[in-house]
Amino acid sequence: MAQQIADLRDVEFVLFEQMEIEKLCQSEKFADFNRKTINMIISEARQLAVKEMLPTQKLGDEGCVFENGTVKVPESFHKVYELYREGEWLAMSDDPDECGGGGMPHTLSLVANEFFIGGNLSFMLYNGLTHGAAKLVEHFGTEQQKQLFLKRMMSGEWAGTMLLTEPEAGSDVGALTTSAKKNDDGTYSITGNKIFISGGEHDLTKNIIHPVLARIEGAPAGTRGISLFLVPKYRVNDDGSLGDFNDVVCTGIEEKMGLHGNATASLTLGGKGQCIGTLLGTENKGMSAMFVMMNEARQLVGQQGFCAATTSYLHALNYARERIQGANLTAPQAGGVPIIQHPDVRRQLLTMKAYIEGMRSLIYYSGTCSDAIATSDSEEEKQLTRKIIEILTPIIKGYITDKAWEVCSHGVQVYGGYGYTKEYPVEQLLRDSRILMIYEGTNGIQAIDLLNRKMRMDGGKPFMDFLSRIDKSINDAKTVAGMEGFAEQVAEVLTSYQNLVVKIGQAAMSDKVQSVFAQATPLLDVTGDLVFGWMLLWRATVAARALEKGAKKKDQDFYEGQLKTAEFFFNTVLPVSLGKINAISRMNDAAVEISDTSFGGK
Amino acid sequence: MAQQIADLRDVEFVLFEQMEIEKLCQSEKFADFNRKTINMIISEARQLAVKEMLPTQKLGDEGCVFENGTVKVPESFHKVYELYREGEWLAMSDDPDECGGGGMPHTLSLVANEFFIGGNLSFMLYNGLTHGAAKLVEHFGTEQQKQLFLKRMMSGEWAGTMLLTEPEAGSDVGALTTSAKKNDDGTYSITGNKIFISGGEHDLTKNIIHPVLARIEGAPAGTRGISLFLVPKYRVNDDGSLGDFNDVVCTGIEEKMGLHGNATASLTLGGKGQCIGTLLGTENKGMSAMFVMMNEARQLVGQQGFCAATTSYLHALNYARERIQGANLTAPQAGGVPIIQHPDVRRQLLTMKAYIEGMRSLIYYSGTCSDAIATSDSEEEKQLTRKIIEILTPIIKGYITDKAWEVCSHGVQVYGGYGYTKEYPVEQLLRDSRILMIYEGTNGIQAIDLLNRKMRMDGGKPFMDFLSRIDKSINDAKTVAGMEGFAEQVAEVLTSYQNLVVKIGQAAMSDKVQSVFAQATPLLDVTGDLVFGWMLLWRATVAARALEKGAKKKDQDFYEGQLKTAEFFFNTVLPVSLGKINAISRMNDAAVEISDTSFGGK
Repeated sequence: MAQQIADLRDVEFVLFEQMEIEKLCQSEKFADFNRKTINMIISEARQLAVKEMLPTQKLGDEGCVFENGTVKVPESFHKVYELYREGEWLAMSDDPDECGGGGMPHTLSLVANEFFIGGNLSFMLYNGLTHGAAKLVEHFGTEQQKQLFLKRMMSGEWAGTMLLTEPEAGSDVGALTTSAKKNDDGTYSITGNKIFISGGEHDLTKNIIHPVLARIEGAPAGTRGISLFLVPKYRVNDDGSLGDFNDVVCTGIEEKMGLHGNATASLTLGGKGQCIGTLLGTENKGMSAMFVMMNEARQLVGQQGFCAATTSYLHALNYARERIQGANLTAPQAGGVPIIQHPDVRRQLLTMKAYIEGMRSLIYYSGTCSDAIATSDSEEEKQLTRKIIEILTPIIKGYITDKAWEVCSHGVQVYGGYGYTKEYPVEQLLRDSRILMIYEGTNGIQAIDLLNRKMRMDGGKPFMDFLSRIDKSINDAKTVAGMEGFAEQVAEVLTSYQNLVVKIGQAAMSDKVQSVFAQATPLLDVTGDLVFGWMLLWRATVAARALEKGAKKKDQDFYEGQLKTAEFFFNTVLPVSLGKINAISRMNDAAVEISDTSFGGK
Repeated sequence: MAQQIADLRDVEFVLFEQMEIEKLCQSEKFADFNRKTINMIISEARQLAVKEMLPTQKLGDEGCVFENGTVKVPESFHKVYELYREGEWLAMSDDPDECGGGGMPHTLSLVANEFFIGGNLSFMLYNGLTHGAAKLVEHFGTEQQKQLFLKRMMSGEWAGTMLLTEPEAGSDVGALTTSAKKNDDGTYSITGNKIFISGGEHDLTKNIIHPVLARIEGAPAGTRGISLFLVPKYRVNDDGSLGDFNDVVCTGIEEKMGLHGNATASLTLGGKGQCIGTLLGTENKGMSAMFVMMNEARQLVGQQGFCAATTSYLHALNYARERIQGANLTAPQAGGVPIIQHPDVRRQLLTMKAYIEGMRSLIYYSGTCSDAIATSDSEEEKQLTRKIIEILTPIIKGYITDKAWEVCSHGVQVYGGYGYTKEYPVEQLLRDSRILMIYEGTNGIQAIDLLNRKMRMDGGKPFMDFLSRIDKSINDAKTVAGMEGFAEQVAEVLTSYQNLVVKIGQAAMSDKVQSVFAQATPLLDVTGDLVFGWMLLWRATVAARALEKGAKKKDQDFYEGQLKTAEFFFNTVLPVSLGKINAISRMNDAAVEISDTSFGGK
């Protein structure tokens, strides 16, 4: 039976064999979990995703309806939302006491989300935002704010969002003009216009809680004067019941390329002077508070890309196995064969496979880092691991969504003309995935984040530790017979990359800073190549060890597939990565030096 | 004033300075043309495109309406169609006597089409197909067929199409089952189902003439038994008046990702046994006849990609000059600046510029080859030049549309969140351009065409001649002061590429043929890189010579832009090309060797 959304065998491989999640269950925190319970949870999530969510993905493409300030989500989303709430999936990895959560390992929640998001990206975006907003309340809320909002959001009774962007403040959040005026009772009156608010208005829940970035009257300009407020759509009485409408008016939703099931709203706050919010966290510290949510949100966007890609891959693979077209090259007289027999189709499928497997490993790895923080006793280790996650974040957000877009495009291509029609899901996956390179900080912003913050953090020490983890995997691979060549191929890229990092560090300290920034995106790209090389090497090492021990026939095919995928990536992608490193190391400044006029067009 | 569609200065540069089209006007055939008349024609085309066509592009995105077997094109297309016909643009480069054409150089018609297609791709596709179908009549029609159809099609009174694809015969045209039965009067009764027919049904014209691939009863299987027929929607009486409906029934149009203004029809021929066609050309020679049209069509698809890309570039450039967001890196206190000042945005814009300029030069170059054939006295030169065009065709179709898709994606990215909305044209350009990698032979088919036919044609001699043209440009560049470094960079890639070609030739003769075919797409990709390097080097050489002579300020900016664009491409793309060549030369066969089961998903 052909699988949809995600390949379960590969999910289990990464979870149990590569990331060894069962070791985590030995910790006190996760003592309730074991291989059996983990498999049950995955099976339940998968069933809900495949049976209930996936059928709503296409229905959601018909879009939301905006009418008189209200938004109706696609009808089919309501039933799925109830099932999702009943399963208590939204807070599955959150604290049982404070949040009413399920307390499962973060890595495991990523697996469940992989099926859910693959089932319906637009739908799951509502829940992803609610969770992110609830985390802000958990981290920065007063006791009263927590009491009123936290469990209601974590249970999905109320939804959440994230109000940053304004027409003149996109990538430059500091330019925002939404203002907050303190009232005598300690609340704030909020006034401003926000745009591009995913899930900013909808009828899935009775209330929507908006974390809003705004500037308190008299606060400094730029990001240093921004505070965070909690602004509900309907005011909330002390007993948790709903009060008056809070003057948060939806003025329209965007017509977009895709992601039609999720309403992208424009909101006017306080148009009648009646929008009341409460401060969340400390005055003028809104940006750093928002970054707590932003990092989670950015990783989520990377996962969204991954989910679109893995779903597209399985569709394309199934199609290639069934679609008869053209004869096999080596048997031209034998008539039509499934297109998976054509070398160029195999090349495309294996390209897709290599990237989605790199994505899955990287995302789960990042999950194990979170779980390591949750279970570690060493404050030092926690600190370092947090920084490793910070380094991984722009790679997960930027590189994965770039490659997801490419994978989804391959998915369309495998279908040929059919792929361009709405008859098959690959078309929608491609459109939906294009926003991922833009929202939560464009991939250009991610690249600059890696170059200018993450690589330089603490004098570059965490970044060196990050690279040493790759080196460790290389050395581990060398201990397995037959893996030496693979290890050498990744080692060659790592060495060139390390030299490049030194060179960039030097250039950043010269007056060439603009030229260095012009290399940010190519640098993120090659960093991603290296990290995927690492992940695939690690996978191959695990697979080679398993084969050495002797595996069942079906497992054997799987493990051999791991070796072939690594071989393919190392011989088709990594040589190109070396070329990219060469290009970046030239630090050419033509893009900076060319005059504005010389771009033409006038 | 910001330009739209195409940069006129660059159009003129390539036409007059790089391709030296005025030399062509010295031939007898084009003696009526000179710089002044050429500029007049371009100006007229540009005006029609910008003022009349461009506004209909977005309107066309609302789509065609299918109702009871008929298709209504977007309302706004009708007026534009009349203007286009009045201007006699459809046959602008065709023979005045036989076709009623304008007899202008083919290269010049490409320039006019650049503005038209940039103005409205969906709309111009109707005309492109009509022209291609008319060319088939011109090449293969009997006197009677010509008399009845040729001028009526060339004038746009009747439209044309191209009926190849069937549900089970896409890339594998030879699998088609549409049949033709000879009648006593010499006509044929046609029966079959065709799908994915661009412009297959519409209300722009009173009749639509379909060239149809079908198999005469008893003819051999596969491509050797395919014949070409001319099948009008309405039968045509001997005096040219319309007769009965010819049983060509439109059963629906596709719901697609984009290109909504062009109806992609499913047609049932002879469902009631009343579809009559006449043989076009020779029995069982339909495929080779169709290839005459296919080569023109494939080049047209490349141009469609180019036009989407150049339009997207100018939109993004204009937006980047106007959109204020974020401070300049080197003046953080000075507040918001136009985003064109940010290095990462400049990098994206210059990437777009480099590719579209490579595209323009390559397309015009191919046009000059056609014109050289039309004006040459030497049969030998004509033969060779035809083969050069054949070599260029998969590069124009495959590489340009691949890169156009990337350029259009950059266009969206420069706009940030706005780029994902339907508020700006870059969103539609991206969706529209995705089909170009698929139709008229997927880009995988183009890659195999280059590898397996074009490179090997005549024992590789034309391909060697093609490479020697690059070498000639390199040597020419070396004669200009300051160009030596650029010349060396392209020479390095050329040398590596030549070695690769030898290696591939050897492998193709071994039992490694599947592995070689798995390299087809990467090979097309790096061939394109090399050709674009050639085109940009050639441009830079012309620009450097002009600067040497001394140019006016505005021209100086333009020429310096040429040098910077070349420098950028040579330092960011070509080093990666060397990596690609390295990867291909490994001829790794993991994609071929991996077992079907190991792809997973079951």
